[in-house]
Amino acid sequence: MEIDIPNIKNQRLLREINKCNILGYILKNGKASRVELAQRFFIDKKTVTNIVNELLGDNLLSPAGFRESAAGRRQELLTLNSSYRNYIGLDLGATHIIGIITDFQFSIKERIFYDIRPGLSVEVIINQMKTILKSLLSSDKINAEITSIGMCVPGFINPKSGISIIAENIPGWENIKLKENFEKDFKKKIFIEDSSRALGLAEKWIGSGKDQQNFIVLDLGYGIGMAMFADGRLYTGSSYKAGEIGHMIMEINGRNCVCGNRGCLETVASGKALAMEASDHLKSNSSGILYELIKGKPDYVTAQDVTLAAEMGDEFSINLLKKAGDYIGVALANAVNILNPSTVIIGGGLISTGEILVENIIKSVKLNTMMGILDDLGIKLSRFDVNGSALGCALLAMRPLFEPGININY
Amino acid sequence: MEIDIPNIKNQRLLREINKCNILGYILKNGKASRVELAQRFFIDKKTVTNIVNELLGDNLLSPAGFRESAAGRRQELLTLNSSYRNYIGLDLGATHIIGIITDFQFSIKERIFYDIRPGLSVEVIINQMKTILKSLLSSDKINAEITSIGMCVPGFINPKSGISIIAENIPGWENIKLKENFEKDFKKKIFIEDSSRALGLAEKWIGSGKDQQNFIVLDLGYGIGMAMFADGRLYTGSSYKAGEIGHMIMEINGRNCVCGNRGCLETVASGKALAMEASDHLKSNSSGILYELIKGKPDYVTAQDVTLAAEMGDEFSINLLKKAGDYIGVALANAVNILNPSTVIIGGGLISTGEILVENIIKSVKLNTMMGILDDLGIKLSRFDVNGSALGCALLAMRPLFEPGININY
Repeated sequence: MEIDIPNIKNQRLLREINKCNILGYILKNGKASRVELAQRFFIDKKTVTNIVNELLGDNLLSPAGFRESAAGRRQELLTLNSSYRNYIGLDLGATHIIGIITDFQFSIKERIFYDIRPGLSVEVIINQMKTILKSLLSSDKINAEITSIGMCVPGFINPKSGISIIAENIPGWENIKLKENFEKDFKKKIFIEDSSRALGLAEKWIGSGKDQQNFIVLDLGYGIGMAMFADGRLYTGSSYKAGEIGHMIMEINGRNCVCGNRGCLETVASGKALAMEASDHLKSNSSGILYELIKGKPDYVTAQDVTLAAEMGDEFSINLLKKAGDYIGVALANAVNILNPSTVIIGGGLISTGEILVENIIKSVKLNTMMGILDDLGIKLSRFDVNGSALGCALLAMRPLFEPGININY
Repeated sequence: MEIDIPNIKNQRLLREINKCNILGYILKNGKASRVELAQRFFIDKKTVTNIVNELLGDNLLSPAGFRESAAGRRQELLTLNSSYRNYIGLDLGATHIIGIITDFQFSIKERIFYDIRPGLSVEVIINQMKTILKSLLSSDKINAEITSIGMCVPGFINPKSGISIIAENIPGWENIKLKENFEKDFKKKIFIEDSSRALGLAEKWIGSGKDQQNFIVLDLGYGIGMAMFADGRLYTGSSYKAGEIGHMIMEINGRNCVCGNRGCLETVASGKALAMEASDHLKSNSSGILYELIKGKPDYVTAQDVTLAAEMGDEFSINLLKKAGDYIGVALANAVNILNPSTVIIGGGLISTGEILVENIIKSVKLNTMMGILDDLGIKLSRFDVNGSALGCALLAMRPLFEPGININY
């Protein structure tokens, strides 16, 4: 085959791909030698050496000792330079704001958690987000420059304009110009993403999805979302709105949903649904473990109270979680039957306290997935407790370094 | 930025990408000039000229007249050389075998249709497939070499081993070594795919999905399948089993399905379900348009009979199709809410006769999709009548020419 004289644009592209592959591999694996990198990505050692030298020179990588190779030669190991940059991730949920600072290896150096009771005004929420950011930015744990802040919101977003279009579980939250507003105040580059896709990024780069190409991440919280990776890349859909598994219709003509439809998964199985059902129940049943737990204030019961009461043996709570798990499992099985992922990762704030819920989800997924597809499916739990989406936000600004073809300018 | 000395492997990759892009563009658009290709793919004219000369020399392209450019210079147009090769596509369904011969522009030159009544033995089906292939291969319409045959089957397949693992709607059809068996008999390369993904390929390259990157194709027939394109590429899932929307659970604890689960979409809305419900109805209602149409033989009623009777005003058939359309629309909306495609293409054998069905599907999709996602969704019908999957089969062997990175050797 005749080889064309290469043009510069394509050479740049190849170099970018190689560079991203090298940084991404080291992020996932912690350490790597030059030989290992050359073998892994089918590139010659000279190219690896050039790229690694550039990355060492720019302080993205640092030496990390030596390893004996099979042939007996010592190989120098490389790791990400944890003090290259610090990153801020800010996760706005319907019931919380979580802000974190990470280093370049994405360890959490500082964390602020703020409880939101549903119903807070948009202004109060935005002010609270700013207060948290200011507090993070003045932390004495910071040991490197912070140039960007990643944020996530549950719902439709436009990452290019930086507008949070709608978050149905936060009343009044519509067309919020996060990028414009926060860049003006903080003089740092703002990146935004949907909460579930932010969780997905964390799973892909530093979590349970590291070695997977086609996988989905279920994000269970006050609402229910999903992230999906297709052939190794985060799938956003045609207009950044993919992942609305919470609005899969489970009961034709079922209960009204905030989205305007009826019978959505979120009406029968989300954190929101658990709290509402528990609240209704407690208003007519003033006894039991759950009632004691919330000190007789049924209006203030949360999904976390339900999961806690269930662990303590509360019959009503156990049954509620079983039913929710059944539904979530059916929805997840429906997604799995369409997508045939290698792995489902179950994550989100609700799973950290909800062993009974998780058990029932897994049972229901297994029951409702087609046999041939279930045979090839792994089911994993997220390792991130409630911090997954915030970690994904910290990674947002970093994606162009790890993922070839991601445009840094959006 | 320092530019590395390129290695040969990467240069080959770049050239393959450029070549595929050029052929794929001409396939989709019919004709193109060299200038147009250079602009479209950001490559220099010298590279385009080199590649085009090679493709002209190899007889893949042929000149197709001239066009005046805006600047007033005549530009030579290029098209696919329709007599470069002929291709055979063979679509095995639960109720039909369709065999076609196409030229290199994927026009159908010859077609054989064979009706299958559910229940035929595996041996009889395979023999019939071979008879059809022999008949096609002796057609006097053939005007170029045929080196490969593409086949599709509804269900799980392994394109590498060429084994049809299971087709649940064809009783007894399990682990059929299509590639091995047919390559031995016909001395041609055999490619296999799932029927719905074959339809998807036809939509992508010569149908309603030409200009789409993220879209889904619903394949309505005796069973119900789906193909999905993520960022321009056919998505297969982690083990080639993606697309089982027919087994989305619509009714928890609903009717038994052939897959072993209960309440799947196929039990309430497929060609199979329509035929079964109509048959049950006719056994206790021996009058009406449908009864007349099938000449009083309820055991032999098909979904096509139901759609025909509905068009003729048969009340029972109309209601049956409305109900089926409602369910299919819910399932499709659930998939759309997860995947946020730019377009849904509704295709498959059942839509060619089923205007009432299609109308109700569209109504239900619109009712059940989230508003923000529906805003960005186009709904199109397949243009292929019943031949879509067979056309996709003809394209199977061609994919390495149009899609960079598709391995020709599986």
